[in-house]
Amino acid sequence: MQPFNDSPLARDGKVLILAYDHGLEHGPVDFEDVPESADPERVFDVATHPAVTSLAVQKGIAEAYYPSYEDDVNLLAKLNGTSNLWMGEPDSAVNCSVEYAANELNADAVGFTLYGGSNHEIEMAEEFRDAQEAAREHDLPVVMWSYPRGQGLKNDTKPGTIAYAARQALELGADVAKVKYPGSQEAMEQAVRMAGPTKVVMSGGSKTSDRDFLETVKAAIDAGGVGLAVGRNVFQRENPRHILDALEKVIFEETTVDTALEAAGE
Amino acid sequence: MQPFNDSPLARDGKVLILAYDHGLEHGPVDFEDVPESADPERVFDVATHPAVTSLAVQKGIAEAYYPSYEDDVNLLAKLNGTSNLWMGEPDSAVNCSVEYAANELNADAVGFTLYGGSNHEIEMAEEFRDAQEAAREHDLPVVMWSYPRGQGLKNDTKPGTIAYAARQALELGADVAKVKYPGSQEAMEQAVRMAGPTKVVMSGGSKTSDRDFLETVKAAIDAGGVGLAVGRNVFQRENPRHILDALEKVIFEETTVDTALEAAGE
Amino acid sequence: MQPFNDSPLARDGKVLILAYDHGLEHGPVDFEDVPESADPERVFDVATHPAVTSLAVQKGIAEAYYPSYEDDVNLLAKLNGTSNLWMGEPDSAVNCSVEYAANELNADAVGFTLYGGSNHEIEMAEEFRDAQEAAREHDLPVVMWSYPRGQGLKNDTKPGTIAYAARQALELGADVAKVKYPGSQEAMEQAVRMAGPTKVVMSGGSKTSDRDFLETVKAAIDAGGVGLAVGRNVFQRENPRHILDALEKVIFEETTVDTALEAAGE
Amino acid sequence: MQPFNDSPLARDGKVLILAYDHGLEHGPVDFEDVPESADPERVFDVATHPAVTSLAVQKGIAEAYYPSYEDDVNLLAKLNGTSNLWMGEPDSAVNCSVEYAANELNADAVGFTLYGGSNHEIEMAEEFRDAQEAAREHDLPVVMWSYPRGQGLKNDTKPGTIAYAARQALELGADVAKVKYPGSQEAMEQAVRMAGPTKVVMSGGSKTSDRDFLETVKAAIDAGGVGLAVGRNVFQRENPRHILDALEKVIFEETTVDTALEAAGE
Amino acid sequence: MQPFNDSPLARDGKVLILAYDHGLEHGPVDFEDVPESADPERVFDVATHPAVTSLAVQKGIAEAYYPSYEDDVNLLAKLNGTSNLWMGEPDSAVNCSVEYAANELNADAVGFTLYGGSNHEIEMAEEFRDAQEAAREHDLPVVMWSYPRGQGLKNDTKPGTIAYAARQALELGADVAKVKYPGSQEAMEQAVRMAGPTKVVMSGGSKTSDRDFLETVKAAIDAGGVGLAVGRNVFQRENPRHILDALEKVIFEETTVDTALEAAGE
Repeated sequence: MQPFNDSPLARDGKVLILAYDHGLEHGPVDFEDVPESADPERVFDVATHPAVTSLAVQKGIAEAYYPSYEDDVNLLAKLNGTSNLWMGEPDSAVNCSVEYAANELNADAVGFTLYGGSNHEIEMAEEFRDAQEAAREHDLPVVMWSYPRGQGLKNDTKPGTIAYAARQALELGADVAKVKYPGSQEAMEQAVRMAGPTKVVMSGGSKTSDRDFLETVKAAIDAGGVGLAVGRNVFQRENPRHILDALEKVIFEETTVDTALEAAGE
Repeated sequence: MQPFNDSPLARDGKVLILAYDHGLEHGPVDFEDVPESADPERVFDVATHPAVTSLAVQKGIAEAYYPSYEDDVNLLAKLNGTSNLWMGEPDSAVNCSVEYAANELNADAVGFTLYGGSNHEIEMAEEFRDAQEAAREHDLPVVMWSYPRGQGLKNDTKPGTIAYAARQALELGADVAKVKYPGSQEAMEQAVRMAGPTKVVMSGGSKTSDRDFLETVKAAIDAGGVGLAVGRNVFQRENPRHILDALEKVIFEETTVDTALEAAGE
Repeated sequence: MQPFNDSPLARDGKVLILAYDHGLEHGPVDFEDVPESADPERVFDVATHPAVTSLAVQKGIAEAYYPSYEDDVNLLAKLNGTSNLWMGEPDSAVNCSVEYAANELNADAVGFTLYGGSNHEIEMAEEFRDAQEAAREHDLPVVMWSYPRGQGLKNDTKPGTIAYAARQALELGADVAKVKYPGSQEAMEQAVRMAGPTKVVMSGGSKTSDRDFLETVKAAIDAGGVGLAVGRNVFQRENPRHILDALEKVIFEETTVDTALEAAGE
Repeated sequence: MQPFNDSPLARDGKVLILAYDHGLEHGPVDFEDVPESADPERVFDVATHPAVTSLAVQKGIAEAYYPSYEDDVNLLAKLNGTSNLWMGEPDSAVNCSVEYAANELNADAVGFTLYGGSNHEIEMAEEFRDAQEAAREHDLPVVMWSYPRGQGLKNDTKPGTIAYAARQALELGADVAKVKYPGSQEAMEQAVRMAGPTKVVMSGGSKTSDRDFLETVKAAIDAGGVGLAVGRNVFQRENPRHILDALEKVIFEETTVDTALEAAGE
Repeated sequence: MQPFNDSPLARDGKVLILAYDHGLEHGPVDFEDVPESADPERVFDVATHPAVTSLAVQKGIAEAYYPSYEDDVNLLAKLNGTSNLWMGEPDSAVNCSVEYAANELNADAVGFTLYGGSNHEIEMAEEFRDAQEAAREHDLPVVMWSYPRGQGLKNDTKPGTIAYAARQALELGADVAKVKYPGSQEAMEQAVRMAGPTKVVMSGGSKTSDRDFLETVKAAIDAGGVGLAVGRNVFQRENPRHILDALEKVIFEETTVDTALEAAGE
């Protein structure tokens, strides 16, 4: 297990994952407002922005585009994921083996969703075990999308749930826990504390205004989170690089939101 | 991953898959109107038509007939499929391993059905993963029959569903997505856009008139699709070669439907 | 894949499988009328009759008796089968691996039941795939007991169902399809046509009179079937060799039923 | 497959299995009347009685005690078994692999329960297949606890059921079938006939009087059974050696029950 | 199988397992009263107390912290475990393979939960088999958390249930059974008797007063238990070392509770 700060996921100990698996998880509806966001090439270009420490995509996208971006982008291969065409108890198909991610995709890290509280939690945790142990063999850091969800969970962003999600990531051996923002900096601090040496990144969620979004990111960083995994709040913007400029300020330079917005020219 | 245009699936970047797995999927009822269509040899003969870039059949048919046609036909081994004797939630048995397709059947490509939205979607996606990764090892292109179907889906050809189906094929690593026609050229364009570098072919569907069928194919081509996978609209015709002549015009020479019908002597 | 006529299943292109797995499938009740029929040795002796081209038994029976009959009987190892102690949705346990059949039992061929239409059809088809591919490795012909059965099927011998059953055997890669008699020679012809190069044998069914039984066999042969798989209509007779004499006439010499009955001394 | 009479299970062609898996199957309640019967060492000592041809225990008991008794006791490793803490449809966990039984426990034979008629029959039969084939590799005889049980079975000791159970053991490849006593010598004869070359041993059942128990054993032997598998009727007695003395007479010397009781000093 | 007393689990034949998997099993709520107890480092430090013979944690915690404590702490890698985010029938995900525990975590022993009586008992027992046999290969002692639980069990600490739990551990091959305290010394004696050579440790349970807790531990030791597995009653105390001092007296020196409390300075 290599030190986190030396891993390809981090720059100066901070993380900005650009996540782009929405085409599988949500479908084309996520690309409607900004139609060109459906084009993976546009997103790979965005991922060359210096603020982005890695790009998270599914196998097929990686296979088709990553060969042209290996020098400029770090690949976080998302190993599982599922369409939302059905509405069953939360579960996620393992679409890519670690061996394939390592040897064929040339991934720098792997990502895996766990739906704690789902009826499929146990099966998913055992799939995570296989992935995590194989990732260690290939020296690939492991990011857990730790998302409690399912029949036993009414509100999946309440502080106790997010803290539990962060802890699950630690207990099961993830290097990074991607969790939803629990509503306050204090709650985020609790999640970070529960994760111990596992780094916590905030999940970006659905699109909001620049200021609201940056305020939340700032709170997550101030709470001890190492950064952000963001999708829609970047690629659903007409000019994704502006918000990345601002995020770079907030995450890597720990500026105020005002400074960040100014630097981004807004 | 070899470039699509160099793959045995394509000729001049276009695709015409003759699909003949109806004996398994639908049963003898599909052969009733043209009884000789039950004979695989007749269909292999039809597949030697220059417009046909590959023939999709199940293992047993390939095993029995392909040895005599290896020089004249490209084999697309359909790996999964199931009878319609029962009416349960959509699922498909994996009837042929990739290793068997590659080493024993001498297949040039493999095909795999995914029923997005079925209760079995996750299991099928994981079977697809195994097949796709094994196909890469054997340098066989992968065609996904991407057919959203199941309890959560009332109308499986609405534009959003077909666009999602095409995207699933891209995200999961298929080289070609076989999707149903979504009803309009505009909707087909959206599916093609969502598939990005994954090539889209229209699924032929049940038998219609020559003109109606060709108009639809023409619209799919104009929408950016690379071609067609067709079964009943060829083999349920008394003279399958006529419609193939016409399809050759529409798909490979991008003529009008009128020109195509004329060339086919009708 | 060796030519069928050279396979140990056939003599002069015809087939007479003596099936004796009733002890597992039906239990001792099938031996009540002729108590000595419970003794496998008696059935192995009967199987030395020249009309019998192979004997189909489960692993345990083969293990115990076949070593003494290897020179005189061809062994068709039935790989799956289940008791009727319960009445659930049709399914069948795989009781013998192909490797064991080939290496330990010295089987000449393997048999496998598929219940098309059962809720377990997909699982059974995938087990069949493994068995079929392993059988090819060991150069063992494959006989499919293709028996549509289950919740979606009310009458499993109607012509369309039997034709579908025969076609499934072809599509999935069986060399021989064992199907129930569909009620008429015409319907059997349709099943034979659907099976293409896969040979069709009629399943003997429950015991009837000599003449009725032979008339049905004759119709199956005239319909293009290559023969018969028979159990109760042989071993439930006091003198099984008489009916085998008659079957030899009808199947291998294609005589009339009258000639066959006469030759058999009745 | 070694001849049964040369196998470690038999002495002079007869069998007396001392079964001691009650701690798992029934729990401590079976040891209540004779508390020292909870101590496996006491039972291993009893198993050194010359009448006992093998001792059947679960993995953990074998691991702890058998090293001290290898010279004096033949070990029949029971491979599956389950607590009765729950009341679900009959099933049994495979607690020990054949490889472990052979290489680590130094077992002389293996035992396996099949609940014919249970909803889990098919799964259990397939686990039995793996165990049986592995046992053949290690040259270990296989005893099947053939116990029809489950939702479709109201009375699991009626003659037809026991006969079926015995036949299942033969068909699936067991060397010995352990069945419940079907109520009469005639019914036991039928079970023995159905098992053919598979040897039949009577299952001892719950504790009864010496005479009643011996009468039943005598009837089983007279019916052609090769012996007995007994647990509670031995270890729940204050002096297990007395009943073993008597059993030795009845089973190995085929004496009358009176003679046996006299010899045992009662 | 190495003798228990020579195993890293024991000191002078006694055992004190500090268990710290509550972050996974119960979540952050268990750390609320003593917030610093959420920090694994604090618990590893506590585990260096001479009374602690091993520390039981999940994979992720071991991976992150054990490298710094290998010289001072014996690691008991807990192989399975699950969050309580859902309320389904008891089950537990296998989060760590034995190979990983042995080769990557450098574990000294492994732990495994079995929920006897759960609908998942059979699946868990078979996972235990794999773990136990692999642990033997790596010469790692096996501790079973033997916790009857599930739909058939209303009160899981009644004497008969705990005695059964202890017996299951023996029958299935565990070296140590961790069971809940059955309410009295007499009941604990029964559990110890049922476990035979498998050592029994009492499970600490939820936090109580020092005296109450020590009285229970004392009773367990007097009953023949070899010690204790304790979590909350240590780490939920402000000064965990005081209670460990007292436990050292009661367990290893078998003092009275009064002496122990005095020695611990209370």
